[in-house]
Amino acid sequence: MDLYIANKNYSTWSLRAWILLKKFNLDFTEHNLKLETPSFIVALENIAPIAKVPVLVDNTITVWDSLAICEYINETYLSNQGWPSDPSHRAKARALTAEMHSGFNSLRNQLPMNIRANRKVELTQQSLNDIARIEQIFSEQHAQFEQQGGWLFGEWSIADAMYAPIALRFKTYGILLNATATAYMDKVLSCPVLAQWIDDALAESDIVRMDEAGVEV
Amino acid sequence: MDLYIANKNYSTWSLRAWILLKKFNLDFTEHNLKLETPSFIVALENIAPIAKVPVLVDNTITVWDSLAICEYINETYLSNQGWPSDPSHRAKARALTAEMHSGFNSLRNQLPMNIRANRKVELTQQSLNDIARIEQIFSEQHAQFEQQGGWLFGEWSIADAMYAPIALRFKTYGILLNATATAYMDKVLSCPVLAQWIDDALAESDIVRMDEAGVEV
Ligand SMILES: N[C@@H](CCC(=O)N[C@@H](CS)C(=O)NCC(=O)O)C(=O)O
Ligand SMILES: N[C@@H](CCC(=O)N[C@@H](CS)C(=O)NCC(=O)O)C(=O)O
Repeated sequence: MDLYIANKNYSTWSLRAWILLKKFNLDFTEHNLKLETPSFIVALENIAPIAKVPVLVDNTITVWDSLAICEYINETYLSNQGWPSDPSHRAKARALTAEMHSGFNSLRNQLPMNIRANRKVELTQQSLNDIARIEQIFSEQHAQFEQQGGWLFGEWSIADAMYAPIALRFKTYGILLNATATAYMDKVLSCPVLAQWIDDALAESDIVRMDEAGVEV
Repeated sequence: MDLYIANKNYSTWSLRAWILLKKFNLDFTEHNLKLETPSFIVALENIAPIAKVPVLVDNTITVWDSLAICEYINETYLSNQGWPSDPSHRAKARALTAEMHSGFNSLRNQLPMNIRANRKVELTQQSLNDIARIEQIFSEQHAQFEQQGGWLFGEWSIADAMYAPIALRFKTYGILLNATATAYMDKVLSCPVLAQWIDDALAESDIVRMDEAGVEV
């Protein structure tokens, strides 16, 4: 399999697909494209119908979009283990995943992922609402599943992949959450697979201007 | 099952979940909430964690978000028949579905669904790009699967549910597409289940100001 992704310092959607493949030890070749460069579009031109990453190529099958990649991998290689096995947990995991996939626009705009930075941003009410909702998700799920592994649904699942960039954002912008939500965030941030992504991000030096928000602290 | 939806004249995400249940003749009670009214939030308060529709309640399971509902229904009641059966078609159907779920923001902002209206809007370049991409999807898929049923993947699937509101938008705002894409649009617009939704929409009289775009033609 081939996975096309963008700058690890910035690309949240890339991280979601990448971490799923890594967590389940699937074999793939990583292609690192650079956002806002002409080669980005050229590289994807003959591969995918839209110039966005992540894109997964598995022999004759091409899947663009992080969530479609997760469902494809889950069904093709994980015998459905990418999702919680209990049907009601699985339904909720899909709802939380979809909520992230189409929502939190304010937070996504105001707090772009920027792993190497430490910043401060004046938050809008809409971003504060987004943060409050995420705090609720992290704390409720972590409290409910603490004894079964402490991920959002106990064992690590696609839902955790979807929310992984949030922990990195909150770290960059110094967003503080309640104790239970923080316990979940700490769990995310101490995950060895994520540490590898972070190391790669810190080794990058390209600047993507539109993702440089806030003031240095 | 209970499905909470909003005004049929305006609510695109509601339509996506509703049409899936109808197409597969699943039994459900419809709860019609009104956007931008206090009762909208009150009705959802004790049902879902966020005040957005559609929301599906199936005994003890609550699913918010259109795409999560589609995956839930597909897995629980349709033995996977909500998606194309060929794995490569299914992967592509999920990619197109996810593309709609998280994208086309410009088109969604400039051309809100408004079934009873006939309007004209000055389109931005971004909206023109969105329209061109949709024209490409409709024409390529319709051409490829014309002999197998003419829906995006031959037989009707969740991908068609996701793109159904587009046909209604293009009708309202007089957006013209090439012949093959138009053939797909005509197929969507002549679907009896959609006709029922349109009839219900035309019987409504509430005005949702933020979805009233463009000038009357
Ligand atoms: N809904 C898509 C979003 C993909 C996306 O927006 N990716 C960004 C990088 S994180 C991108 O490719 N941006 C390049 C561009 O828009 O030109 C997904 O979930 O994969
Ligand atoms: N990603 C969600 C979007 C749901 C959504 O935005 N629904 C609109 C109606 S079409 C809504 O409930 N709006 C009410 C509000 O935002 O207050 C989905 O796919 O279901």
